[in-house]
Amino acid sequence: MPAGSLRTEAPTVRLFDRMVVAGVGLIGGSLGLAARQRSLVGEVVGYGRGEENLATALARGAVDRYSRCAAEAARGADLLVVAVPVRSTRAVVAQLLPHAAAAVVVIDAGSVKGPVVEALEALVSPPAAFVGCHPIAGTELSGAANAAADLFEGQLCVLTPTARTDARALERVRSLWEGVGMRLESMAADDHDRLLALVSHLPHAVAYALIAAIEGERVGGRDPLAYSGGGLRDTTRIAASPAEMWRDIFLDNRSEALRAIDRFAAALARLRDGVERGDAGALDGDLGRARAARSRLKERRS
Amino acid sequence: MPAGSLRTEAPTVRLFDRMVVAGVGLIGGSLGLAARQRSLVGEVVGYGRGEENLATALARGAVDRYSRCAAEAARGADLLVVAVPVRSTRAVVAQLLPHAAAAVVVIDAGSVKGPVVEALEALVSPPAAFVGCHPIAGTELSGAANAAADLFEGQLCVLTPTARTDARALERVRSLWEGVGMRLESMAADDHDRLLALVSHLPHAVAYALIAAIEGERVGGRDPLAYSGGGLRDTTRIAASPAEMWRDIFLDNRSEALRAIDRFAAALARLRDGVERGDAGALDGDLGRARAARSRLKERRS
Repeated sequence: MPAGSLRTEAPTVRLFDRMVVAGVGLIGGSLGLAARQRSLVGEVVGYGRGEENLATALARGAVDRYSRCAAEAARGADLLVVAVPVRSTRAVVAQLLPHAAAAVVVIDAGSVKGPVVEALEALVSPPAAFVGCHPIAGTELSGAANAAADLFEGQLCVLTPTARTDARALERVRSLWEGVGMRLESMAADDHDRLLALVSHLPHAVAYALIAAIEGERVGGRDPLAYSGGGLRDTTRIAASPAEMWRDIFLDNRSEALRAIDRFAAALARLRDGVERGDAGALDGDLGRARAARSRLKERRS
Repeated sequence: MPAGSLRTEAPTVRLFDRMVVAGVGLIGGSLGLAARQRSLVGEVVGYGRGEENLATALARGAVDRYSRCAAEAARGADLLVVAVPVRSTRAVVAQLLPHAAAAVVVIDAGSVKGPVVEALEALVSPPAAFVGCHPIAGTELSGAANAAADLFEGQLCVLTPTARTDARALERVRSLWEGVGMRLESMAADDHDRLLALVSHLPHAVAYALIAAIEGERVGGRDPLAYSGGGLRDTTRIAASPAEMWRDIFLDNRSEALRAIDRFAAALARLRDGVERGDAGALDGDLGRARAARSRLKERRS
């Protein structure tokens, strides 16, 4: 390991002896890289379906070893990280849990928390413990090839503990995410799902629909996509995200996703109405307010 | 002028003696910078309403001098560049034209071409000549402070000449845009307006509506914008664009903008329907097709 990749600000403490990462994609792979570089865990074991991606994870240093066999991967694990499409979370935990240490800590990294927390709390019993986590650090990229040790730096991780959550496990999980550079906030799973429906699930639905509305159109034989500038490129970047992952998110957060889409559709209909009526004053007001809100977003994040 | 800012690939030819830029914003200011650095014009004169922006343009080298008086600004000009919100184009040309050289070439830089070309062809008579132009190089930034000499490099400029367009003027205008690094394509104004409604005006409407749908919402007292990641940031970047400019574009390209919004609303409704019905197969297909189209867009532009 190159010395330059070690953090020197604070002495690192080994939080777990053996971390199994199920789904060594962008999030799982980045957590493996970051945790190994910072010596937060003793060993990282990869588990997944695809041999090629697992081999990439190994070559890039995201895992110490990997296995496609649940029993072999999970043996002796005291931390199980499940970073798979949300609808697969329960099944993957069920495969691995019987083979892990009795007091294993189980965390997920999913973009929907309500159904996942409910299913996992029913599945994971003491002395094992589950803590719901959502590190908000994804991009449109996927796979171990795109993992990065600094992916989490300065980003927010939402934790959704419940009355049933083991306090000691929660503390260790907090230390893990803080150890890879994240800011932490705890909230109810339902609040998380409503917030993320607005700021993440809705923009994804909009980006996919935007590309769908344009692709296939022809104007005088011309493909419109050949005439796009930076606006369409940025607006649709997240439509390059994995379809399987977003299908699961929309379906698992269905009522909040629908509610967010309906709010958006109403805002768009209002803007459309101003255009149709040729109402310059209404458009000035609506566009000006949106522009001001966007400026606040920029300030907040810089 | 620093030697490093001169292009050395080809000898530059002075195309116009005196270029007046009305509206020294992102586009007008960048054209002034690029044309001066490459010696494509003898002198650049700024014209506009705001003293502060004009002074910025002068300080940054986008103009040699400026005036807020139409007669003073336009005197002796053989090129008049109008880079103002589209609905102001005709009025600004009417102010300046009487004071310019008789054979002045007039160009615009607007995002809508049909109404502008119609109005300007009625206003500009031989020996003066009008050529409709749309350099597709804008961003959400505005004002002379954000002008850049390399803004146009490698970007597309659409020209919309008609049967009435003077061939010699068209040739000189082509040389100007090519001189600042643009690729050129000519098409009918109506085709331009339909294409741009899809790839530019629609994404702007969507971005403004997306911010409008989220701002003002609170979840358990929390501001959703504080929980956003890179997805919302990129999806809404262009909602920071000037409201006045986009109000004009939507109104001047009304029928095509409405048509594009309706296409998008149908695509979103289809996706919403898949979510509501819990139809994983339909979502897989729709999201997968959109993702593939987005990948083609990326390849095309890289």
